[in-house]
Amino acid sequence: MFTLLKREGHARRGRLSTPHGTIETPVFMNVGTQAAIKGAISAHDLTELGCQVELSNTYHLHVRPGDALIRRMGGLHRFMGWDGPILTDSGGFQIFSLAGLRRIKEEGVSFHSHVDGAIIFMGPEESMRIQSNLGSDIAMAFDECVKIPSPYEYVKASCARTARWLARCKTALAEYNREEDAVNPGQMLFGINQGAVFHDLRIAHMKQIAELELPGYAIGGLAVGETHQEMYDTIEAVEEYMPADKPRYLMGVGTPGNIIESVARGVDFFDCVMPTRNGRHGHVYTWDGVLNLNNRRYAEDPSPIDPRCGCPVCRRYSRSYLRHLIKAQEALALRLASAHNLWFYNHLMEAIRENLDQGTFAAFQREYSDKLSARI
Amino acid sequence: MFTLLKREGHARRGRLSTPHGTIETPVFMNVGTQAAIKGAISAHDLTELGCQVELSNTYHLHVRPGDALIRRMGGLHRFMGWDGPILTDSGGFQIFSLAGLRRIKEEGVSFHSHVDGAIIFMGPEESMRIQSNLGSDIAMAFDECVKIPSPYEYVKASCARTARWLARCKTALAEYNREEDAVNPGQMLFGINQGAVFHDLRIAHMKQIAELELPGYAIGGLAVGETHQEMYDTIEAVEEYMPADKPRYLMGVGTPGNIIESVARGVDFFDCVMPTRNGRHGHVYTWDGVLNLNNRRYAEDPSPIDPRCGCPVCRRYSRSYLRHLIKAQEALALRLASAHNLWFYNHLMEAIRENLDQGTFAAFQREYSDKLSARI
Repeated sequence: MFTLLKREGHARRGRLSTPHGTIETPVFMNVGTQAAIKGAISAHDLTELGCQVELSNTYHLHVRPGDALIRRMGGLHRFMGWDGPILTDSGGFQIFSLAGLRRIKEEGVSFHSHVDGAIIFMGPEESMRIQSNLGSDIAMAFDECVKIPSPYEYVKASCARTARWLARCKTALAEYNREEDAVNPGQMLFGINQGAVFHDLRIAHMKQIAELELPGYAIGGLAVGETHQEMYDTIEAVEEYMPADKPRYLMGVGTPGNIIESVARGVDFFDCVMPTRNGRHGHVYTWDGVLNLNNRRYAEDPSPIDPRCGCPVCRRYSRSYLRHLIKAQEALALRLASAHNLWFYNHLMEAIRENLDQGTFAAFQREYSDKLSARI
Repeated sequence: MFTLLKREGHARRGRLSTPHGTIETPVFMNVGTQAAIKGAISAHDLTELGCQVELSNTYHLHVRPGDALIRRMGGLHRFMGWDGPILTDSGGFQIFSLAGLRRIKEEGVSFHSHVDGAIIFMGPEESMRIQSNLGSDIAMAFDECVKIPSPYEYVKASCARTARWLARCKTALAEYNREEDAVNPGQMLFGINQGAVFHDLRIAHMKQIAELELPGYAIGGLAVGETHQEMYDTIEAVEEYMPADKPRYLMGVGTPGNIIESVARGVDFFDCVMPTRNGRHGHVYTWDGVLNLNNRRYAEDPSPIDPRCGCPVCRRYSRSYLRHLIKAQEALALRLASAHNLWFYNHLMEAIRENLDQGTFAAFQREYSDKLSARI
């Protein structure tokens, strides 16, 4: 399924086949939490924006409109009109970050819906059922995402439970996808490594879950409160224990600089809400850093967001017009800024892949790692 | 400039040349008040949605970002990225419907900005200066839009003043557009007929302003409180006094049924915020009437909004998905519903033109006049 095409240092250039097409890695997945990308971006737009993989959230779609409904509508691809690869998370992160009052047991987690307060139970089997109903190409394991900092002993016990949950995920998903009317029988399962910033726990957990020989592995539970350096150190510690022939996904990361540094440390998959969230606030990416379109200095600036950018927004609209849309509180402002930012992230990954292809990634890293995250 | 191609009863099939292209009439102008179409629709989308003419608002753009800024940015076409014909209203309607505390004198009107409360003065010369700065293809006369009902004597005096203002508009706009660096030297001026629902005042005013031999005439001050029948009666009363060789524009109208009935009474141009306003509320147009996507009955409906519609939304998304987007409060809902509705209005006009071309408009009117405004 996954082909490792080339390496430069720890950085990897690869390719993953899925039931809905091939993914060139390293890749940034475009987040459409509720089967819709924030900022009024449609699935149809994603193709033009260079998106390879769409990511939706199991927890949100279970709560509304319901995964059973989406299954009856033909699965998530058909429902939202996106024919390319889709990854769904497991709901774990949302349960531990968003939902109200929760109780963790060996079976799973009880929590309150953020929409109507209804009590929901989700364990490995429930998460797999939902993801099988959604029919994503990559399902993520159901895990506990512990907050940082957490006590060592708590994290250790949690890792053990997450490993037990992973075995149940594997069994359950295989069973559901053998059903005659399974939405996407070729759906893959990625395991998730946990352990906070305790390197020994990360490594022990990674060794344990690698034995399940899943089609891919993620590093979860980072970008939740630790420093960037702690994050990089943790990736470095665990990376050599991740199967080299499987794709690696760093969940919820991050700035362009974070992505470049993590590619350099052997990561292949990324996702983050920053492009659309920043877009909604008028913060847009350029190859020189982040630019704040709210700033008065752009009021009569006829240039596009980034003169080097070839996106549909930069081809057509000026900073002056975009600033006007923001000040006038036009919904179009959110859409255009979000579209530009998604294009930027997708083409950042393209540039990373090209540099890996040509063996010039180290030079690219030196030139852009700091610059792309600066404010200009 | 205007060619009358064909008639059927009072209905007219025509063609108007403008500096930014030819307009086939009857036509519906797509409203982009603040140089942006509501519902996150871009100027680039308008072409795909079948829009022929974009309409922006002088008052709003004067207040923010300022017409002088737009002039410095190359005019409204370049600023918003729309290369087709643009009509700007005069600010009159907004001053009388939106702005705070106003004082009307012979020179013009003092009022408070709805954005920051600043006192603004606008008379015929100011309105023409702004519209010349914006560089629209069709500028509208500065008028007083009296509310309905208003006393006969007040309306009579107001009509007389609006006629005097029109002469000043004609002189001023010609002068501004002779400037060497005029944004759009070929900009046309349309006069506006007033007189509330007093037929004798409407007719007297129309006769008076027809003498100025302007490139087009509008019926203003309707759709502001009178019944549909009063509106139709007023159009019928004044229509025979409108120059037959000039385009006629019924301002701010209306439902599909209103448009069909007004075409039948000799009107060529329309504009209305209903397609985007209804879209924002999940109310969408079909050839059987208006459908409310909020309704639970559409939760699992796999069909497009209208199976007979060829718009980009109906080609790709189901009622079920659109209802989910509304319930999940995704900005994409506003965009897709607004896009569909604009396409519907633009293609309604295309159907009207085709029926006029083929001499079957009367039959079209009978079939669709009531049906298209119904709720289903």
